Amino acid sequence: MSEIAEQTENRPTSKQRLRFWLRLLKLQRHMEAVLREKLRAEFDTTLPRFDVMAALYHHRQGLRMSELSSFLKVSNGNVTGIVDRLVQDGSIIRVPVEGDRRAMVVRLTTRAREEFGHMAHVHEGWVNDLLAELSPVDAKAMIAGMDRVNQSLGESA
Amino acid sequence: MSEIAEQTENRPTSKQRLRFWLRLLKLQRHMEAVLREKLRAEFDTTLPRFDVMAALYHHRQGLRMSELSSFLKVSNGNVTGIVDRLVQDGSIIRVPVEGDRRAMVVRLTTRAREEFGHMAHVHEGWVNDLLAELSPVDAKAMIAGMDRVNQSLGESA
Repeated sequence: MSEIAEQTENRPTSKQRLRFWLRLLKLQRHMEAVLREKLRAEFDTTLPRFDVMAALYHHRQGLRMSELSSFLKVSNGNVTGIVDRLVQDGSIIRVPVEGDRRAMVVRLTTRAREEFGHMAHVHEGWVNDLLAELSPVDAKAMIAGMDRVNQSLGESA
Repeated sequence: MSEIAEQTENRPTSKQRLRFWLRLLKLQRHMEAVLREKLRAEFDTTLPRFDVMAALYHHRQGLRMSELSSFLKVSNGNVTGIVDRLVQDGSIIRVPVEGDRRAMVVRLTTRAREEFGHMAHVHEGWVNDLLAELSPVDAKAMIAGMDRVNQSLGESA
């Protein structure tokens, strides 16, 4: 194929991918705005705070600050500031790492684990409502597509 | 169906939709980080600035600040500050609205239109590369799915 023919061939594909990206952004921004507002109104909390609690909820034994930052690397917000406030609230405790006296991990308190379990359940319900138009079959196909892309991005990063 | 049976029935669906949302966020955050860095390195510009220029590129006759803010409502950044800097750079001009002396619209300068046309072309190439794993058929199907959701969210908003 000549270079010009190839460019012409490729054009609809790149336009389609751009359109996909713009639609994805639109959906993400819309949903994030709704979820942010619901978290504020219902639980008086913020999205970055929710993200930190979610990370610690899934790492029951706790995370070093560096691990937490790396886990949340693509998320917003100042992790240190958020953790400090969660410590003040009694939602997070700092505990020494066994066998390394100088190292500390942060961990959810029992009360915060229970609270987060409830929040996560309610949050799942909001997402389910927002995505009511998406059948499980659609969702599954789209997850597979995004996983392929996420994997290729992970490899190239 | 009893309430408990229905809850059990619904659970896989809501889990699937939550998984869809988390994958979408992962993809968006990863792509946005890459694009942000490329815009900085290649064009010494930012994502909010690119978004403002894109909005004005698509509204050739200009937009009032309120229209621009509303068009970008789900985007980040302080629109006024970004516009002020683009005016200083000579990328944007403020022009009076015909028939309403007190109203002004902001509009890209001819030079900025040309510059943005080039940036948009390069940006489309980056998106095309990042989404190389997505076939046009996949992209089309996923656009249709997201459009359904975006439409339902627009109606409920």
